[in-house]
Amino acid sequence: MPADNTALFRMAQKLRRHSITSTSEAGSGHPTSCMSAAELMSVLFFEEMHWDPGDPSGKQADVFVLSKGHAAPILWAALKEAGAIQDDLLTLRRYDSVLEGHPTPRSPWVRVATGSLGQGLPAAAGMAWARKLEGGAGRIFCLMGDGESAEGSVWEAVQFAAFNRLDNLCAIFDVNRLGQSGPTMHQHDMDAYAKPLSAFGWEVAVVDGHDVAQVKAAFAAGRGTGGRPFAVVARTLKGRGVSFVENKEGWHGKPFKKGEEMEKALAELGDTDVTIKVEPRRYKAVTEVAPVEPRLTPDYQIGQEVATREAFGTALASLAKVSPQIAAVDGDTKNSTFSERLKAVAPERFAEAYIAEQNMVGVALGMACEGFIPFASTFACFLSRAYDFIRMAVYSRPAHLVLCGSHAGVSIGEDGPSQMGLEDLAMFRALVASTVLYPSDAVCAERLVEEAARTEGVVYIRTTRPKGKVLYGNDEQFPVGGSKTLRSSDHDQVTLVGAGVTLYEALKAQEALAKDGIAARVIDLYSVKPLDEATLRKAAAETKGIVTVEDHSVHGGLGEAVAAAVSGAGRVAILGVNGISRSGTPSELLARHGIDAAAIAAAARRFL
Amino acid sequence: MPADNTALFRMAQKLRRHSITSTSEAGSGHPTSCMSAAELMSVLFFEEMHWDPGDPSGKQADVFVLSKGHAAPILWAALKEAGAIQDDLLTLRRYDSVLEGHPTPRSPWVRVATGSLGQGLPAAAGMAWARKLEGGAGRIFCLMGDGESAEGSVWEAVQFAAFNRLDNLCAIFDVNRLGQSGPTMHQHDMDAYAKPLSAFGWEVAVVDGHDVAQVKAAFAAGRGTGGRPFAVVARTLKGRGVSFVENKEGWHGKPFKKGEEMEKALAELGDTDVTIKVEPRRYKAVTEVAPVEPRLTPDYQIGQEVATREAFGTALASLAKVSPQIAAVDGDTKNSTFSERLKAVAPERFAEAYIAEQNMVGVALGMACEGFIPFASTFACFLSRAYDFIRMAVYSRPAHLVLCGSHAGVSIGEDGPSQMGLEDLAMFRALVASTVLYPSDAVCAERLVEEAARTEGVVYIRTTRPKGKVLYGNDEQFPVGGSKTLRSSDHDQVTLVGAGVTLYEALKAQEALAKDGIAARVIDLYSVKPLDEATLRKAAAETKGIVTVEDHSVHGGLGEAVAAAVSGAGRVAILGVNGISRSGTPSELLARHGIDAAAIAAAARRFL
Repeated sequence: MPADNTALFRMAQKLRRHSITSTSEAGSGHPTSCMSAAELMSVLFFEEMHWDPGDPSGKQADVFVLSKGHAAPILWAALKEAGAIQDDLLTLRRYDSVLEGHPTPRSPWVRVATGSLGQGLPAAAGMAWARKLEGGAGRIFCLMGDGESAEGSVWEAVQFAAFNRLDNLCAIFDVNRLGQSGPTMHQHDMDAYAKPLSAFGWEVAVVDGHDVAQVKAAFAAGRGTGGRPFAVVARTLKGRGVSFVENKEGWHGKPFKKGEEMEKALAELGDTDVTIKVEPRRYKAVTEVAPVEPRLTPDYQIGQEVATREAFGTALASLAKVSPQIAAVDGDTKNSTFSERLKAVAPERFAEAYIAEQNMVGVALGMACEGFIPFASTFACFLSRAYDFIRMAVYSRPAHLVLCGSHAGVSIGEDGPSQMGLEDLAMFRALVASTVLYPSDAVCAERLVEEAARTEGVVYIRTTRPKGKVLYGNDEQFPVGGSKTLRSSDHDQVTLVGAGVTLYEALKAQEALAKDGIAARVIDLYSVKPLDEATLRKAAAETKGIVTVEDHSVHGGLGEAVAAAVSGAGRVAILGVNGISRSGTPSELLARHGIDAAAIAAAARRFL
Repeated sequence: MPADNTALFRMAQKLRRHSITSTSEAGSGHPTSCMSAAELMSVLFFEEMHWDPGDPSGKQADVFVLSKGHAAPILWAALKEAGAIQDDLLTLRRYDSVLEGHPTPRSPWVRVATGSLGQGLPAAAGMAWARKLEGGAGRIFCLMGDGESAEGSVWEAVQFAAFNRLDNLCAIFDVNRLGQSGPTMHQHDMDAYAKPLSAFGWEVAVVDGHDVAQVKAAFAAGRGTGGRPFAVVARTLKGRGVSFVENKEGWHGKPFKKGEEMEKALAELGDTDVTIKVEPRRYKAVTEVAPVEPRLTPDYQIGQEVATREAFGTALASLAKVSPQIAAVDGDTKNSTFSERLKAVAPERFAEAYIAEQNMVGVALGMACEGFIPFASTFACFLSRAYDFIRMAVYSRPAHLVLCGSHAGVSIGEDGPSQMGLEDLAMFRALVASTVLYPSDAVCAERLVEEAARTEGVVYIRTTRPKGKVLYGNDEQFPVGGSKTLRSSDHDQVTLVGAGVTLYEALKAQEALAKDGIAARVIDLYSVKPLDEATLRKAAAETKGIVTVEDHSVHGGLGEAVAAAVSGAGRVAILGVNGISRSGTPSELLARHGIDAAAIAAAARRFL
């Protein structure tokens, strides 16, 4: 039996109570940001959403994403009141509690970590897209703050959702007028939200977010929007319900002081004695496609000229043919990254994100939440656009999320520095949980695409624009964490370590050194993280020095990884890009930045 | 005398001719993306803009920003035809030419490097904001592609410009329907651009971008928009003017083949024999404020408890009082970063960017172009949102651009991982030209703010949330590239290197070790880039090992910088964050990640 409006209002007050007491107990947190959303949360969790408090999987159910992550206390409160969690709300923000300060998947009810604003909607759009593809019922609800809607990523997702006719997506804007450090840009100008949303093709309902009846009616209206995503733009008051903080500046991220202040606040909420049982409601199950392990077999001849970016596309298409869970998203670069090859064989599993890389990564994360193994690709340099999304994706702990950056390094040539990915290895290595792969030839590229699809968490694959000769046989395996020693002898004097375009330069340098009677070991460091430390330390010990060379910044990449790994075991000379590049041919630029065969041989000689 | 429409059309054709011949000669580039914008460029450069082809400073003149940077050839062509540059257009994209593949400041006519899309408008908005502040006349024109308007940063700038009533800003959307890999999201649906722009408060004119009269009229109408920024949304055809490529897919980034194909294209342009003299037109000069060297004197007592983020704010205000060119922009975190202290003393020089970090950095870059020394601040983790903007800012070679990231590391505590900056050192170190500073105490923080304001290019300052004791006297100097040895003796057995919160842990570890008769050297590595290599190598040689400790990812930060610097001279143990963090108290989290005094002391003992 549906709850009546009085009960739903009282539940809103009860959620406020929990938000206040838990943050006061923690001594930090954002009670007033919770209080503005109380009626919205009450109606969603205890009336509108089809869900089962006993099943956090989100399958056959509506899904809720709290994009305004600082309102976590009211999420925990709603889950607790619905019987979905048993945790003590008063453990909020404690080291031993799953109820973190912002939502993280330590709670099984959280699909995507939030707290960096403007990230919920792209992920929710990805889930909505994936669910449409699977033919599944259910809506994806995303609660956002008004301040966060200044983030451009929100408007990227808004456009993506409209273009893809995601009428199973519902965005809720909690327009409480106040940001962290003062009033928001648009304060209570509801048109400032409603008009752009309409202009971008959304269906919009503007409501008083504290009027339970209006909120209920709005959600009901959003159930059938015929191809248009739906937004509830709710006028609310920050700190609603407690007169001395309501709609007042200076109360962001500030708990009520335990004791008199908190009690005074709670007293204003009145009677909050209410229980609403959430009856499990599930949608009809869709026939699930059984996952198939991604596998492929490269098909090249040694010496054949192939760019790793092209091999990436070939591999992606091969995997997609075998595994129904492989999907791809690209930022209008599919003919450069070669992700178009997946589109050719599985068009329905390819999402065009256009030139909006933040949303692209958010959508990929959303796909992952719905069970896909998504590959998101663009030029390596443009992934820097989505770095905050990638960082947060790590905290979302997706089963799989693969990012591919093509056109890495100065070897792209004439297009110039704006198109050169020179920070991507540093960017992905610095993530506190990640895998970083960097193939040099086509066989390795295909194998690493296969490895990436099987590897848990966030994986990065770096590909190159120019073609390179195939170095490996089709049966060669490239386990994550390994390396390949391509040249070695029992009297190696130096070690040359490269990957991608610089591996070929290292091989040329080895030949040049050999002519002078200097034996050089050459290592293909295709797994940048994790690193094959044993092989590197052995090389450091057995030779007079290691020269690392990378078409990447000299800071934070492959060279420093090696220097850190072999510290104390030997010497390392790091060759990499240091200084602003320019237009030119690839060979002119490799020479300019001292990462060509001549520079490698010279660095090697300095060790002797 | 204004040029007539026939001459302007013929000039458009001539610009097309140059765009074709220069890219054909280069063998790469984007002629068709230039051709859609030819009438827009002709009218702008030879009719609408007030500028002086003899003076690239942009002072007392209108300014042009080519946000769709891949159309660089038509910019070079327009400048050449106007007599502003003498370079041979046929040297385009060559290693020895300033005419790069995408605009860079190697040409004095380029203020901001472009080529990563969606970045021109934020920078242009910053220039417009700065010019308003200075009371200067002149308009900032920004030419954008339609594909790039999918970037959320465009809509961040759109909101910023409307909110700040930048009616001296004119955005031109070259809606040529085709992106890189296929049609754009909205193709020729002009409403898809015009309606959201209007909804966000802009004045909009929709025109046929190939009709010189319409384009002229639109720009004229935009001259007085009473507080509203102005957009020209121009319907154009990619490859306009050459029938076999016009409005056709598959021609993005593809030059015409020299010989028959190119000649066939040129023949279709007809007679392009035209010269239009650009008469220098300048606005009245405003009285310029003479720059004053930024300087300050810290005022603390040793042992006083102050957070470096607070000292940052104090220093910023001090500098602003002295130097009229100091300005600040913040992303609704001014009460956390303490940039609000500048706002308190110089409100007119503070821009609130709200929660839109990409635009925040773009605006700061625009301010720098107009002669300011801008400080842009937010939480360290949220600067990852703007990484592509920061990367491109390096290529813009600003005289000054300072970024401050507060709340670095796990030491923020209860808010949890979403708010922890753990990748920022790696991010800023990896830039091919940057300075990275990391103060531990308030005196150092103030001095480094002063240093940052005087240091050329992109500078990063990392600040901490918790308070720390003042360690240095107010007269202490902290030159960029230096370090401070806080503890040392003639029998040091190990070296401990820290910065920020971990420096205090290192000092505690030193005390603990001393109790066991182990002498430890302690180094404050406040300049992370450039690094004080001499001091570090000396420590590596004189002690049995260096323990580095950082409240940052173990990859790409301070530790790897040290390991690379001392390679071969000694051993380094790197302590840093490796693995996903969580909510907790700062001390719980420092212990969890092995970066507290106990972990440092243990690592030091392993060297003995």
